[in-house]
Amino acid sequence: MSRVVTLAVIPGDGIGPEVVAEAEKVLDAVTAGGDVVFERTRFSLGAGRYLDTGDTLTDADLEAIAGHDAILLGAVGGVPGDPRLKDANIERGLLLKLRFALDHYVNLRPSKLYPGVPGPLAAPGDIDFVVVREGTEGPYVGNGGSIRTGTPHEIANETSVNTAYGIERVVRYAFAQAQRRRQKLTLVHKTNVLVHAGGMWKRIVDAVAAEHPDVAVDYLHVDAATIFLVTNPGRFDVIVTDNLFGDILTDLAGAVTGGIGLAASGNINPDGAFPSMFEPVHGSAPDIAGQQKADPTAAILSVALMLDHLGLGDEASRVTRAVEADIATRGSATRTTAQVGDAIAAAVQA
Amino acid sequence: MSRVVTLAVIPGDGIGPEVVAEAEKVLDAVTAGGDVVFERTRFSLGAGRYLDTGDTLTDADLEAIAGHDAILLGAVGGVPGDPRLKDANIERGLLLKLRFALDHYVNLRPSKLYPGVPGPLAAPGDIDFVVVREGTEGPYVGNGGSIRTGTPHEIANETSVNTAYGIERVVRYAFAQAQRRRQKLTLVHKTNVLVHAGGMWKRIVDAVAAEHPDVAVDYLHVDAATIFLVTNPGRFDVIVTDNLFGDILTDLAGAVTGGIGLAASGNINPDGAFPSMFEPVHGSAPDIAGQQKADPTAAILSVALMLDHLGLGDEASRVTRAVEADIATRGSATRTTAQVGDAIAAAVQA
Ligand SMILES: CC(C)[C@H](C(=O)O)[C@@H](O)C(=O)O
Ligand SMILES: CC(C)[C@H](C(=O)O)[C@@H](O)C(=O)O
Repeated sequence: MSRVVTLAVIPGDGIGPEVVAEAEKVLDAVTAGGDVVFERTRFSLGAGRYLDTGDTLTDADLEAIAGHDAILLGAVGGVPGDPRLKDANIERGLLLKLRFALDHYVNLRPSKLYPGVPGPLAAPGDIDFVVVREGTEGPYVGNGGSIRTGTPHEIANETSVNTAYGIERVVRYAFAQAQRRRQKLTLVHKTNVLVHAGGMWKRIVDAVAAEHPDVAVDYLHVDAATIFLVTNPGRFDVIVTDNLFGDILTDLAGAVTGGIGLAASGNINPDGAFPSMFEPVHGSAPDIAGQQKADPTAAILSVALMLDHLGLGDEASRVTRAVEADIATRGSATRTTAQVGDAIAAAVQA
Repeated sequence: MSRVVTLAVIPGDGIGPEVVAEAEKVLDAVTAGGDVVFERTRFSLGAGRYLDTGDTLTDADLEAIAGHDAILLGAVGGVPGDPRLKDANIERGLLLKLRFALDHYVNLRPSKLYPGVPGPLAAPGDIDFVVVREGTEGPYVGNGGSIRTGTPHEIANETSVNTAYGIERVVRYAFAQAQRRRQKLTLVHKTNVLVHAGGMWKRIVDAVAAEHPDVAVDYLHVDAATIFLVTNPGRFDVIVTDNLFGDILTDLAGAVTGGIGLAASGNINPDGAFPSMFEPVHGSAPDIAGQQKADPTAAILSVALMLDHLGLGDEASRVTRAVEADIATRGSATRTTAQVGDAIAAAVQA
């Protein structure tokens, strides 16, 4: 009896299709001969689709995607400055719309410095933490507007909306992660300036901490957190933070661990009410698209996060170990996107 | 005929008084025998004053401070977690209140990697840029609130308020800086998510750029900017950004250039309607207060920024050169706060 997992695949734009091809190759390799079958539906979405049809994400697209068990996304976004995309906002209209509509309240972003990977820090130490970034609230809700737009009297507001409901659930998820890991959780916010939102985050973390005496909890202002990410990243185990601060910290963390070519992420609905979505942290990099220059590792590690989320822990570990083995033998020789995928797929089966 | 400059001195808390003492020592040295006299008034403000009197910043304090030509501030803030400060918010009630009340719309923060200074990057390259951080708007305006506070139904909002008036004036200042420097300006925001505020920043930068064809302009999302700060900080000359992004980028920039012990800042009202305020970027570090362990360099470099702002360019250069000379000869020997101040004061007079 085989288990069927339905997977919505959104290759997207730029290097998205190339890295997704390798991610699927590794998914095929790790499931070959097993009793889990991934049934895939491909969705053509992104700047390409917008240019073809004018659509960003139709209700029908959204409904069809929501009917799957999981989503694998490459990267979306056109060439910066393309005048035909002037009125499109693929990020808000597609990526953020999916995250919000599918209630991806956990944006899980592991950061690990793999042995042998060159990074920008002189003495990085052991880096191995996860950022649990809130995915459905904060400054990302799109609650903004402007008046007298384009005049010298323009006023533009952006409102960060935060709820106890939304924070508590992501904080609980972060504590559960910390329990599975090294029992350390750091809240990052800016409580001294954003006193209302920050104050609520702090109070909820303190309350949930009282139920988790095994987890050591500390707090950092976001500015101080960026300092520690470059001076002592080893101090972090689980970081929990809001949508905007999480965006900033995870890109910096990606850089510190050798580049966002290795940074995977999961947009997770832990309740299972909606499919979760897995994607590399990097963007569509149109400048190198179609040239087999992109590193598919982040997309492949996103598959590992997906497998883990789907309860396929063994398969997830096999992918992670294959990636680690591949990274350890990477020299200065450049390989094509497909060559990296081939090597990891082969290692998965070995 | 000597020129009298009236200076409000706010030593503050923790290491504030120690570093300010050295900054004043260097100010004395550089003005000795010249025809500018700094007439000083000391203000006891910060956590210490709050604990003594319950006051954070009275109207009388503010009025008295506003009557000066310039302000030199050490650092404010009590011991984190001190229960007696639970209801105080020294940051908002004192530091931000001064910045807002005195219309410090430019928060100028230079970042320079001095030869010989150890930093966290393996290959930092030449780092020499300034961040022009907006100081009176954005998410810092304190336009937030919560309902059902402390209940599971709490909602907390924080509104970022942005005006064309406020952005244009700081953008113009940033372009002027770029013209004095290497003619390169980078706008940092998050236009793809904060479309209204970000859109206005972008439009205003584009409009002012059209008047400055000599300045090369680019744009980075804040997350990408943090990546470049650790992978290629040499790419930056002038960064212009909002209050919150500027807070984050300047702490990271401080770390990348060898620690915020060297990072100076000016809270500037370029119109001269109010006195500008100069302060090290670092905080009050109560854990090392009174031990002569703090590095006064950031406070001393803040004096250089102040001298420059007051039109005393020669004196400013003498201080900067003395600091550079001192930094170049710093070995691993630890000196007291006063010893560093003595050395720089002596170098200023040499
Ligand atoms: C493209 C953008 C909207 C997105 C974000 O800010 O979340 C990206 O930066 C990310 O981190 O996934
Ligand atoms: C203390 C705090 C309010 C302040 C800020 O966020 O501006 C500090 O971090 C700074 O950068 O000067």
